[in-house]
Order: sequence, then structure tokens, then C-alpha cells
Amino acid sequence: MIQPTHYTASPAASLALFRQRSPLVHCLTNDVVQSLTANVLLALDASPAMVTEPVEAAQFSAIADAVLINVGTLTAARSEAMLAAVQGATAAGRPWTLDPVAVGALTFRSDFCQRLLAFRPAAIRGNASEIMALARQAVSGRGVDSQHHPSAALEAAIQLAQSSGAVVAVTGETDYVTDGRRLLAVSGGSPLMTRVVGTGCALSAVVAAFCALPGDRLLHIAAACRVMSQAGEQAAAAANGPGTFEPLFLDALYRLYKEAV
Amino acid sequence: MIQPTHYTASPAASLALFRQRSPLVHCLTNDVVQSLTANVLLALDASPAMVTEPVEAAQFSAIADAVLINVGTLTAARSEAMLAAVQGATAAGRPWTLDPVAVGALTFRSDFCQRLLAFRPAAIRGNASEIMALARQAVSGRGVDSQHHPSAALEAAIQLAQSSGAVVAVTGETDYVTDGRRLLAVSGGSPLMTRVVGTGCALSAVVAAFCALPGDRLLHIAAACRVMSQAGEQAAAAANGPGTFEPLFLDALYRLYKEAV
Amino acid sequence: MIQPTHYTASPAASLALFRQRSPLVHCLTNDVVQSLTANVLLALDASPAMVTEPVEAAQFSAIADAVLINVGTLTAARSEAMLAAVQGATAAGRPWTLDPVAVGALTFRSDFCQRLLAFRPAAIRGNASEIMALARQAVSGRGVDSQHHPSAALEAAIQLAQSSGAVVAVTGETDYVTDGRRLLAVSGGSPLMTRVVGTGCALSAVVAAFCALPGDRLLHIAAACRVMSQAGEQAAAAANGPGTFEPLFLDALYRLYKEAV
Repeated sequence: MIQPTHYTASPAASLALFRQRSPLVHCLTNDVVQSLTANVLLALDASPAMVTEPVEAAQFSAIADAVLINVGTLTAARSEAMLAAVQGATAAGRPWTLDPVAVGALTFRSDFCQRLLAFRPAAIRGNASEIMALARQAVSGRGVDSQHHPSAALEAAIQLAQSSGAVVAVTGETDYVTDGRRLLAVSGGSPLMTRVVGTGCALSAVVAAFCALPGDRLLHIAAACRVMSQAGEQAAAAANGPGTFEPLFLDALYRLYKEAV
Repeated sequence: MIQPTHYTASPAASLALFRQRSPLVHCLTNDVVQSLTANVLLALDASPAMVTEPVEAAQFSAIADAVLINVGTLTAARSEAMLAAVQGATAAGRPWTLDPVAVGALTFRSDFCQRLLAFRPAAIRGNASEIMALARQAVSGRGVDSQHHPSAALEAAIQLAQSSGAVVAVTGETDYVTDGRRLLAVSGGSPLMTRVVGTGCALSAVVAAFCALPGDRLLHIAAACRVMSQAGEQAAAAANGPGTFEPLFLDALYRLYKEAV
Repeated sequence: MIQPTHYTASPAASLALFRQRSPLVHCLTNDVVQSLTANVLLALDASPAMVTEPVEAAQFSAIADAVLINVGTLTAARSEAMLAAVQGATAAGRPWTLDPVAVGALTFRSDFCQRLLAFRPAAIRGNASEIMALARQAVSGRGVDSQHHPSAALEAAIQLAQSSGAVVAVTGETDYVTDGRRLLAVSGGSPLMTRVVGTGCALSAVVAAFCALPGDRLLHIAAACRVMSQAGEQAAAAANGPGTFEPLFLDALYRLYKEAV
């Protein structure tokens, strides 16, 4: 297996390019995290938008610079809008990113994500068990393997990147990003981030948005992960708990490397 | 009528047990409060999840430790998911809790809550008029009585507990919790809590989650009410308004009795 | 064209009347901003409610003091609830306000807003391009003109006010409010407000709520705009970024002119 290389670069250059381009990001995400997702993108100078009627979702995906599909609170109706958005994005050559929330145990979303993979996502962001479940499906249909040790997740991520053509990010205490050929380890962050709903989903939105940048996508996505973990560290240092963490996290994203630029 | 006993116990033991078990709580709640609900549960070390496609809602309720049904923004589609979740929970022996938001004046939700009662909720949490409306329905169909003085609400709560088999919490300036035989009064909290959307709905989620604990459910639910009112007092003492109240409230929940444990 | 008059009055009198009346506001708004919308109304002592099943939306609009329709995440199902709410409000003589989010480029919502205009909104609040798109439709069907310079937006606002009978607010760095005869310019606010999702949508909710007041609607809506821009200035002066801005903004709304009263 490919051994992970530690990502030690600064995300400043990717972030400066990102702020300058201010991508318009079409987010079809779950009901719980819409507000945080939008605020994270706004803090980074991107423009979020959520358009959910199927015909409009297709229209909007062709206008947007990037599309996010997060199946957290998937319904049959919402899946039609997502499919329309992915088709619209594909037809217009826009990158789209998949966050396969809770794929594996729940059947409707598992089948749906499997179906979406045919449309070639630019990136996939999930936790270890989601990436393993998605990789098993992609390789051999719904399987039963449930080992979750990190090396198994990394192997799954690499396989999924190779079979799907996407850059795959398996995130957790350390984030791993792979294009199937290279594998980067991005560290940092704070345990407080797991006590605030939507930090993982917001990371997927940032990954989706960074896919709009020209250049090496693997490096941009590693930068996206580092931007979030670095803001998380800064917020956690000043916060008194998960409640004060959230506003401080958004402030940190807003200020990150701004003085330098 | 049973006279209320003042709850003067510390919620520390229930809360320590809660944090240790970290229950997985399936929340089918209204669109306005999903984020606060999840953050309140996360601050208390529980694991919230929202799954809304009917077939998945049933699958997930059987995995979860507790289920919350809140009808605040009920739609016909959402009611199917809720019914599936309640049936899944019942079949798997998981406790489920009902928050009958605005039951009484609005017909669709009133009929739906009436229908749900047949599935024997573990707990019901509402304000005085909601509990009175639900009790009237449970006893005699949709009535017209609209007295809202506290003693009428307490009588309704006791009747509802007896007819439904649930522990019933009527919350307001003072919270009352009854299993139809005992009646506890839990005081505390802050008027600022009424100026932040979702504090009542989040309390219902915490009540639902505390139903996952082994032991005396009445005492656990009184503890849940006290945990919330105590964190509310602490946050209000430091807040400058409802905006700063919310992050301070989540921090207070996160820290409550943690040093002691 | 009518020349704008600078609004230099204090919003204190309108705000005092508003707090005293504490209007019940039925908000049919988009999924992303529901929580902030409710918290803004609560901070101003109003009572927000979101009821989305069509039959209930009609029942509730007849009880509420004012109704908000915001098409940000419009779906076919939601459009039925909105239509029922507008019809219920109209039948009961309650004022309703339209926020035509992203009207113009997206077809489903453009057709829907056009259809709603027949029900005579009390107010319309949008940015320059939304008001221009809506005015073009109202005058001549879906057009292609896309000039966005301020004077074109003001002319469109005046025409839209005249044809629809609504008070129209075009908001941005400076807010303009017109009843088709008078035109007020309301200044203030902070660029940080554009980095927090939902501040514009929440302003629409406040405009909708101020329509419940007796007296000169144009002046009340200008006061609503000034209340929001003044709280924005106060919050921005103390905030360290968009994250801390939001709680400080809600605190500022809660405290604004309260000591004076």
C-alpha cells in the first residue's frame, strides 16, 4: 500500500486563490447543517446557495462553480433534486463532491450513493466507516466487512479513488487525502469539533468549493482540510466549550492568513 | 389531585450515567430547531442523528437508543417517516418521546398526535396548553375547553400520564413531571430561554435521550429538566442578551458537573 | 423619477409599538435561515412560527398577525403551503410580505412569485437584481434587461410598488423603501452582515412583522430597516468576525432603545 506523506505545506496559497475567486457553491446538504455550512463558506469569502426544486437545481448547478451532495437527511424527493444537480453539473463540466453520510447501514442512501458514483465525483469526503462502506459497494456490492482500523480505511480510500476517479478524503483525528496514487496525512484540529454538529459536513462543503480551483486538486483538498483544522485549533484555544467554539471558529476562518495576504 | 413535590435532588448522578452511556438519539424534529437540538445533545455527550426517509427512519429507530418525535413543522411526508420511526422503535423496544408542538388549534398535527398515542410513548413534553389539548383529545376527542391555569394543566398532565402510560412533562417557568402517580416540580431556568428558538424543543430531545437510561424514568426526566434549567441559569448570568446566551448555554451543558465526575 | 429622502428619524417609536404588540409572525421561509429568522424576531419580542402543511398553513395564517413568504429553497410542495398561507392571510385581512430570493434566473420560483403578486402583498423586500427581475415580470413578463445600477433598481422598485400595491424595499449598502409615491433612503449597517447567512432574509421577516403595526406602513418599514442596520453597526463594532457578529447582533436587537422605553 502507498504510505502516507505528511502534509506540511501552508494552505495560504490555496486559500488566497480561493478568496480571490470566491466560488459560487451549490450545496444540496442535510437539514441539520445548512446554516453552519453556509456560514463557513461565507467566512472564507465563497458564495453558498441551496436550490432544491429539481428543475431549478439543474439550472443552478450549471451556473455554480462547484456542487456539494450530502445525503445526511436524504428523502426520495431530495434525491431527485440531487440527481438533477449532479447531471446539470456534469453536463456543464462543474466539479461535484459527495459526502456519503451514514452510508452502509441505511439502504436508501447506500443505493443512491452507489448510483451517483457513475457520474464521477471530483471528490468524496467521509469518515472511515463511510469510506469503507462506499468502497466495498463500489468494488463488490453491499458487503459485510466491518473492520474499521485505520489501515483498512486507507486501503479503501485508495481503492475508491482509483475506481471512482475522485480525490477521496477520509477525515478524523488525522485527515487522509488520496487521488489513488498519492496519499497525504493532514493533522491538527480539536476534539471540540466533534461536539459541534456539522463541522464534518462543512468540511465537505469546503472540499467541494476548493474543487473549483485550477491546479493540483489533491493539494487544494489537503489545504481545505488544513484550513479547517487550523481554524479549529485557534477556536479551541480560546473557547470555553462547544458553544463558544462555533463563533470563534467562524471568526478564525474569516481571519486565517488574511493579514499575510 | 396529587400535590407536587419539589425536586431538590442533584441531577449529577443521572447526568454522569447519561454521559457514560452516550445514547444515540434519533430525532425527527422540526426544521427550525435541528441544529440547536443536535448541539444540545452533543454538548451532553450524546449522539444525535436525523434520518427522514420512511424506510431508513424505521431502520434507524431500531438501532438508536431513543427516538424523538416533534411535530413543529409536520408535513404529510414527514408524518410517514415519524410513524415508521415510532413503529420501528416500538418493535425494537426503544423508548420514544412526543413533543406535541401547537397541538390543539391545528388539525393535521392534532389528529396525527392522537394516532401516535396508541404506540405508547415513554415520555411526552409540552407547554401547558399543548398538554391540555392532548389530554382532552386522549380523554374525549377534540374538545373546546381552553382554561390554562396551572392547576388545570397539572390535572391534564396526570390524566394524560395515566391514559398514555408516558411520563409527562409540562414545562414553563416551573416544570412539572408526572408518571400519573407522582408529581415533581422542577424550578430554575431563565426568561432569556424564551427569547431563543428551540430551547423547549431541545429539552424534549434531552428528555427523549434520558429515557434511554435504566432506572426510575420519572427521576431521570426530572434530572433532564434540571440539567437544562441549571445550564440556563448559568448562561443567563453571563449573557448580555439572547444572542450570547446560546453559546454560553451550550458551554454550560458541556461543563455541568463534569469536574465533580 | 422621485428623488430619495434620507430617513433620519429614530426607529424608537415604531420599535416600542412593535414590542408592545409582540406580533405573531407566520414565516414560510427557506431551510437555511429558519433559526436566525426566528431568533431575530424573538430578540425583538415578536413571536415567530413556521407551519408548513398546506391545510395548517392556511389555518395558521388566519391566526397570525403577519405572514412572510421567502422562496429561497422553494419546492413544489412548499409552494402549495405558501399559496394556502397567502390565501388564508388574504381572506383574513392579514398583511403578507414577499422575499423573492434569486428570482430571475430560476424559472420555477419566478413563475410562482409572479402568481403570488396577484394576491397583493403588503411589502416586498429584495436586493437590486431581485426587485428588478420581479418588476420586469410584473410589467412585461420575463424580460432580458439586466442593468443593475442603483438608479435602475430604484425605478424598478417604484414601478413595482405602483403595480403591486406593496411597499417595496430594495436593500443593500443603502436600503431604499418606497410606496410608489415616496422614496426613503436608510443607511447604516456593516459589511460583516453579508458574511453571515440570513441577515437579508431575517430583515424580510422583520419587515413582514412591522406590517402588523397600525399607522404609516412606509415609515414602519423604514424603521424596520434602520433597526436592523443599527444593531448591525453595534455588533460589528464589537465583533472579531462573522462568527461573533451573530450573537452580538441578536443581543443588540434585544437591547435596542430598551432603556429609553
